[in-house]
Amino acid sequence: MKLLYAPTSPFARKVRAAAIELGVGDQLRLELVQVAPCKPNRDYAKSHNPLRKIPALVTAEGMTIFDSTVICEYLDAMAGGGLIIPSEGYARWRVLTNHALAQGICEAAVLVRYETWLRPETLRWQELADDQWDRIDTGIEWFEQHAGELEGPVNLAHLTLGCALGYLDFRWPEHDWRTRNPAVAAWFGTLSQRPSFALTKPETPPAS
Amino acid sequence: MKLLYAPTSPFARKVRAAAIELGVGDQLRLELVQVAPCKPNRDYAKSHNPLRKIPALVTAEGMTIFDSTVICEYLDAMAGGGLIIPSEGYARWRVLTNHALAQGICEAAVLVRYETWLRPETLRWQELADDQWDRIDTGIEWFEQHAGELEGPVNLAHLTLGCALGYLDFRWPEHDWRTRNPAVAAWFGTLSQRPSFALTKPETPPAS
Repeated sequence: MKLLYAPTSPFARKVRAAAIELGVGDQLRLELVQVAPCKPNRDYAKSHNPLRKIPALVTAEGMTIFDSTVICEYLDAMAGGGLIIPSEGYARWRVLTNHALAQGICEAAVLVRYETWLRPETLRWQELADDQWDRIDTGIEWFEQHAGELEGPVNLAHLTLGCALGYLDFRWPEHDWRTRNPAVAAWFGTLSQRPSFALTKPETPPAS
Repeated sequence: MKLLYAPTSPFARKVRAAAIELGVGDQLRLELVQVAPCKPNRDYAKSHNPLRKIPALVTAEGMTIFDSTVICEYLDAMAGGGLIIPSEGYARWRVLTNHALAQGICEAAVLVRYETWLRPETLRWQELADDQWDRIDTGIEWFEQHAGELEGPVNLAHLTLGCALGYLDFRWPEHDWRTRNPAVAAWFGTLSQRPSFALTKPETPPAS
């Protein structure tokens, strides 16, 4: 299988971490793709994803699958099913809702990055960046208040929250989310030592 | 069940349309919620979704479920399972990937709305709005070129594409996506006559 990815994308990291957790990491052949708002990559839009978003997976049968969540579910099914996403019932809706929250934190962080780095300086709107930071902080705080949700075998919500927190540390190491959220911080410390996270940590400095 | 929603949200419409298609529309009690970037609704963040996004569903058992995709899957399971989202195999990954594309079109449209309406006029970046329009147009064009994907029983990708196109018509009636995409236009004309779409059409004018 081929994974179209970028080393700094938290959504690509989520898929790579899921593959390692599911024991299929060695089946993923990574292929770097350059995508960014306002820099249309027409080849990629045509060949893989009209939205020009990464990651995308090309399966052994040649089918293209996206977004990151669908790819994770595909890998889970390939590995037997019900491993990082419970197959049914209350457990499934809980993990998928927790995942939607973690995913939203990650998306808000990417929006902050676009607002404060990609956008021309004179057109930046601090109020919007602050609003996204508020969602990020409120989201992490929810997990702090429901730390029981972080227990048990690693699931898709855990992996996604881990990628969101790793992205915060990578882009804004000065943003201290740990002091206010000690349970999440301790949990993330443990998660970070797993091969799925240790082997996928974003190390590359931003291109500019 | 209670659905936290707004009448103009394409993501809330997706859930309402799914419920009607699944025959459980009469079990949804709608409750209006006001959310917008930079206007934090703290009560809603605390009670339902820390991200302050709609829709959210409160089940008969009192569990809160989000986002729109998870709610649709929950309603599908409630109605028997495998109805608007195939349960497994190739059909599942195809519908979920098509859905991710339709969802991305919808998200890009909402970003254009924020960029060109919510954001203070002096801070608007036309290049970003153009970039999102390009994603929207390229996404619709993909469905035009793969019109076979629009056939068969209504699925989650169909509902989501329909909500995206309905949102375009609602916010930018002057944006002519139909001329370039006659197959999608004809399909959307038929879809719009189904009760799931006729009963959920956004009619309310923007608040300002």
